[in-house]
Amino acid sequence: MLFQVRMDVHIPADLPAEVANDIKAREKAYSQELQRSGKWRHIWRVAGEYANYSIFDVDSNEELHQLLTGLPLFPHMRIAVTPLCRHPSSVRDGDA
Amino acid sequence: MLFQVRMDVHIPADLPAEVANDIKAREKAYSQELQRSGKWRHIWRVAGEYANYSIFDVDSNEELHQLLTGLPLFPHMRIAVTPLCRHPSSVRDGDA
Amino acid sequence: MLFQVRMDVHIPADLPAEVANDIKAREKAYSQELQRSGKWRHIWRVAGEYANYSIFDVDSNEELHQLLTGLPLFPHMRIAVTPLCRHPSSVRDGDA
Amino acid sequence: MLFQVRMDVHIPADLPAEVANDIKAREKAYSQELQRSGKWRHIWRVAGEYANYSIFDVDSNEELHQLLTGLPLFPHMRIAVTPLCRHPSSVRDGDA
Amino acid sequence: MLFQVRMDVHIPADLPAEVANDIKAREKAYSQELQRSGKWRHIWRVAGEYANYSIFDVDSNEELHQLLTGLPLFPHMRIAVTPLCRHPSSVRDGDA
Amino acid sequence: MLFQVRMDVHIPADLPAEVANDIKAREKAYSQELQRSGKWRHIWRVAGEYANYSIFDVDSNEELHQLLTGLPLFPHMRIAVTPLCRHPSSVRDGDA
Amino acid sequence: MLFQVRMDVHIPADLPAEVANDIKAREKAYSQELQRSGKWRHIWRVAGEYANYSIFDVDSNEELHQLLTGLPLFPHMRIAVTPLCRHPSSVRDGDA
Amino acid sequence: MLFQVRMDVHIPADLPAEVANDIKAREKAYSQELQRSGKWRHIWRVAGEYANYSIFDVDSNEELHQLLTGLPLFPHMRIAVTPLCRHPSSVRDGDA
Amino acid sequence: MLFQVRMDVHIPADLPAEVANDIKAREKAYSQELQRSGKWRHIWRVAGEYANYSIFDVDSNEELHQLLTGLPLFPHMRIAVTPLCRHPSSVRDGDA
Amino acid sequence: MLFQVRMDVHIPADLPAEVANDIKAREKAYSQELQRSGKWRHIWRVAGEYANYSIFDVDSNEELHQLLTGLPLFPHMRIAVTPLCRHPSSVRDGDA
Repeated sequence: MLFQVRMDVHIPADLPAEVANDIKAREKAYSQELQRSGKWRHIWRVAGEYANYSIFDVDSNEELHQLLTGLPLFPHMRIAVTPLCRHPSSVRDGDA
Repeated sequence: MLFQVRMDVHIPADLPAEVANDIKAREKAYSQELQRSGKWRHIWRVAGEYANYSIFDVDSNEELHQLLTGLPLFPHMRIAVTPLCRHPSSVRDGDA
Repeated sequence: MLFQVRMDVHIPADLPAEVANDIKAREKAYSQELQRSGKWRHIWRVAGEYANYSIFDVDSNEELHQLLTGLPLFPHMRIAVTPLCRHPSSVRDGDA
Repeated sequence: MLFQVRMDVHIPADLPAEVANDIKAREKAYSQELQRSGKWRHIWRVAGEYANYSIFDVDSNEELHQLLTGLPLFPHMRIAVTPLCRHPSSVRDGDA
Repeated sequence: MLFQVRMDVHIPADLPAEVANDIKAREKAYSQELQRSGKWRHIWRVAGEYANYSIFDVDSNEELHQLLTGLPLFPHMRIAVTPLCRHPSSVRDGDA
Repeated sequence: MLFQVRMDVHIPADLPAEVANDIKAREKAYSQELQRSGKWRHIWRVAGEYANYSIFDVDSNEELHQLLTGLPLFPHMRIAVTPLCRHPSSVRDGDA
Repeated sequence: MLFQVRMDVHIPADLPAEVANDIKAREKAYSQELQRSGKWRHIWRVAGEYANYSIFDVDSNEELHQLLTGLPLFPHMRIAVTPLCRHPSSVRDGDA
Repeated sequence: MLFQVRMDVHIPADLPAEVANDIKAREKAYSQELQRSGKWRHIWRVAGEYANYSIFDVDSNEELHQLLTGLPLFPHMRIAVTPLCRHPSSVRDGDA
Repeated sequence: MLFQVRMDVHIPADLPAEVANDIKAREKAYSQELQRSGKWRHIWRVAGEYANYSIFDVDSNEELHQLLTGLPLFPHMRIAVTPLCRHPSSVRDGDA
Repeated sequence: MLFQVRMDVHIPADLPAEVANDIKAREKAYSQELQRSGKWRHIWRVAGEYANYSIFDVDSNEELHQLLTGLPLFPHMRIAVTPLCRHPSSVRDGDA
């Protein structure tokens, strides 16, 4: 089941650089593990912004919530979720 | 080069059904041809709305504009374009 | 899986009364059938507006989209969907 | 009498963790007591956000205000209230 | 129980004058009857706009909804409801 | 001459409690004095929010500005003013 | 007493040209009469838009409402009113 | 050449009072000098807000920008500029 | 003196094709004449929308208003004007 | 390939002056180098605001993102990107 997720990151200016870097490193590892598992199907940078659009493929809203609130950057993100479904004009079967 | 495009469709209530159906049939054929060519990489329905989120892979802004204004439903759509690029955390090479 | 859905109804002023009444009667029957099936868990009128907040319990985004686009009033509605999940403070098990 | 309440929580980054945890523990106890009393009929997490949609069943606007301003997290919440009433298509009697 | 209600009126340009005048006359009679009953406590014109702010004093959300949807101008209004309660600084007892 | 005023209060988290309490006590005294003088005709709490809707009855915009900027909480408020006038359907003479 | 008023004009496309021209001619005469009386102190065109910002000098909200609703173009305008007062830094006495 | 300028002032709570007072005194002197020169034609307080609407009469966008960024309060202001021009219904020649 | 202008075009669906085409042809001629004169310095299509961003170089707000309201498509456009000036980091002299 | 970019700068009040000045000096040098290379085609100050509208001419969304995130002021900017393309009415060939 597919969801589009937009994440806007706002790291506080007074967060020490080493703390921020540690969070970002853990964020990247977390994201890549989920990408490899197939749960996080796509991630694209929004040009010119510290933001991304992602596509998640999960079993339930609950699972999506667990994955998103587990993001190391979650406390510094504004997140918007849009539930998607297969488009009748799509030529793909699985359509992710 | 990737772009996210959101399309919201508003077909006027007084458009005769056969005209509307003809436009929709041509829209579907047009979309599927572009999907098969690789230009229109993804199309997802927004749950509960007559709208979609799509990913286009084109050579230029110009090409994107030509493809979008060529949509049979273009006169009845509100369109928003967001330029995307590869995310540094992406595990995919081509990332589309 | 739970979703909150807000529906705002705008019936065009020039729709003949008998047509409007027929749509509304079919809407009511459709809604009540889904309520009895357990798919449409709650429906509340927004005080002072021709609008409702509803809770749906469906298996997927796809099923939600099918149910909503099947509404007889769908062409005259603006719909907003919010995916929900169980709250950690909830005392209910099924939580619908 | 039913009200939908949306609560968005923003805990300041500089609030000490033990203070924040104490507030959250008291919030949970407060919420569950009200849920058991029947005043707080539903609470759902908004997927991907530190926010909830809730349904309250109270005797008056005054009582609702007392319950909401009594929330331990109230100073860190943005709250929006929507008065609801029974929908004419509802198949439920009490409709909460 | 008090509610603030804002009503914005948009009478369609193609509504025949005699129909519009009949609606307005019935609206005025309806409003004045409710004012005299004490249900519609205040009504003020917003300066420069075809809009009013009103204060209703009703027993429930349900009663408010019945009163508002019974307005002859209801099909031509946009309505926003805000539940109010007694302010702790108010010097009035009944405070309407 | 009547004005609706909405006041949203945001007291900074780092304001010492005794300072905040002193401001609130002076605010209450100031408000009640103006209510007794007839200048501040109504004050209602917005249910669930640290906000109020008030009705002022003043001789001029200038007087309204003086009264509002004199509020002890003024530095911590967002204020919106709407000029009102007597509604043609009002059954009241003075209509405040 | 001064008020800023913004007026945005939207003349329906299907209004016959002679009707529109007659309304505009009456609007101009009405405006100039009020300007000469001193009630309508300033009127400026917003560059590039069919809109103006005006300054009115009236005795009350009521008088402002009467003047604005008397505009021949009133049914085709969106109007926003902002109450003004003398600025403490102004070097003018009357300050209009 | 005329421009409407809206200035909203937000002085940080932690700015020492003597610094704030010094800035305000210099702001007032700066404003009055420009008013006397004819560049700053009008300044009105927005009732109930720490904001003003002003009319500037300058030779170019460049000159307007220099005047506004020279304001002692500029770092604490949100500014919005609207270019104006003579209205065809104005009875004034210079129309400022 | 430079201005950025955004124009969004909305041609009514019921405008006969030959009328629309005639307007568009006159619009193009009008635009190109102004471009050649140097008044209309740039015009760019917004990708995916029936809209453009343009840069005008005019002597006054008045001249800009005359040019814009003279556009054959003006009655079918929403226009937003932003006054620009030379940027201190610009390496260009004339900077248009 | 052309993009319009709007940049709004918000330098934190507590950033030491020498740090801010150093960032601004590097920003200017960075901008001018890109302008001379032809990548940053135009930069205009928005009159009255600490903001600019710029036109970039780049090979891809990716290149635009690299240029923008490399701005020394990037952490203190809000950025909005709009993809542009040649307008059919443009009299210029390269049209930048």
